[in-house]
Amino acid sequence: MAHIELGVDETRYTGITGIMMFRQETAKPLNELAEVLLRGPHSLPAGERELIAAYVSGLNECNFCRNSHSAFAAAQLDDGMSLVDQVRADVDSAPVSAKLKALLHIAAAVQQDGRKVTADLVAAARQEGATDVEIHDVVLIAAAFCMFNRYVDGLGTLAPDSPEPYAESARRIVEFGYRLA
Amino acid sequence: MAHIELGVDETRYTGITGIMMFRQETAKPLNELAEVLLRGPHSLPAGERELIAAYVSGLNECNFCRNSHSAFAAAQLDDGMSLVDQVRADVDSAPVSAKLKALLHIAAAVQQDGRKVTADLVAAARQEGATDVEIHDVVLIAAAFCMFNRYVDGLGTLAPDSPEPYAESARRIVEFGYRLA
Repeated sequence: MAHIELGVDETRYTGITGIMMFRQETAKPLNELAEVLLRGPHSLPAGERELIAAYVSGLNECNFCRNSHSAFAAAQLDDGMSLVDQVRADVDSAPVSAKLKALLHIAAAVQQDGRKVTADLVAAARQEGATDVEIHDVVLIAAAFCMFNRYVDGLGTLAPDSPEPYAESARRIVEFGYRLA
Repeated sequence: MAHIELGVDETRYTGITGIMMFRQETAKPLNELAEVLLRGPHSLPAGERELIAAYVSGLNECNFCRNSHSAFAAAQLDDGMSLVDQVRADVDSAPVSAKLKALLHIAAAVQQDGRKVTADLVAAARQEGATDVEIHDVVLIAAAFCMFNRYVDGLGTLAPDSPEPYAESARRIVEFGYRLA
């Protein structure tokens, strides 16, 4: 049970969905932020941006967000959940580009503390071709999931164990996006 | 110098202001979120909500956000910066209501990890009269500043040392709000 009375069936509206229904005034900018960062026009594919969100959520041990964004990444990446699992297990040996590895290293630093992002980490990403907008957005995606993860877990929401609800959400997000989530 | 080329005078557009000018697509929902959480119609006065933001930013040691929201809180609280300093030094002995102390304890738990928010912390706040919306919003304010703090520090932005720029921003925020920030 969540820490507050959400007024919805919590076994159906799990994780962030129930707390967004409880407080639609804050849900609106939160969904708009997710839409711009994860699905807006971009040089990084949506699947790679969702992978960064899943990776940070895993580092924060937020089961609902990790499972959700792993499913959203898998639905938009050629190698699906196998690739997501490899990145979450070990970034450096995963079969992703050197640029994405360098961006994931920046995301991991942000997850700990913004001050952990060093000029060397940024230079390494730029060396692999990362642009200023990509570096900016990866910092903000990682920072945003330090918010979303705390929001979901701080209110004690439920996270389904089975993969089906996350796969169902993935179909909805890929088709309609976050603004209609 | 910030980690990316912001295209603005960084000594003038310090902290979050320069990175919001760099990426206005994300600045829009970020400002809308701050406006709803910190200035929207609410049972908690704006000064108390800014105080929670300042307190969390202090725990995250983000100088720009701590100084900014301390100034914004001070501008909207009867006891001004003296009260902000007392809360930041020691919540339990500060001259604020028992309800606000209980909410600050929830905010401190969120700053560490969402899972640190226990049923006991929530019950203690409710015992002092906190409503479900207040508990929800305090969790989200604390979570949001775990994002804003990492965003500002993760991109290596400048934070002025002197109090004047923060006091100037406080006048603007109190008069016009975050949507026009």
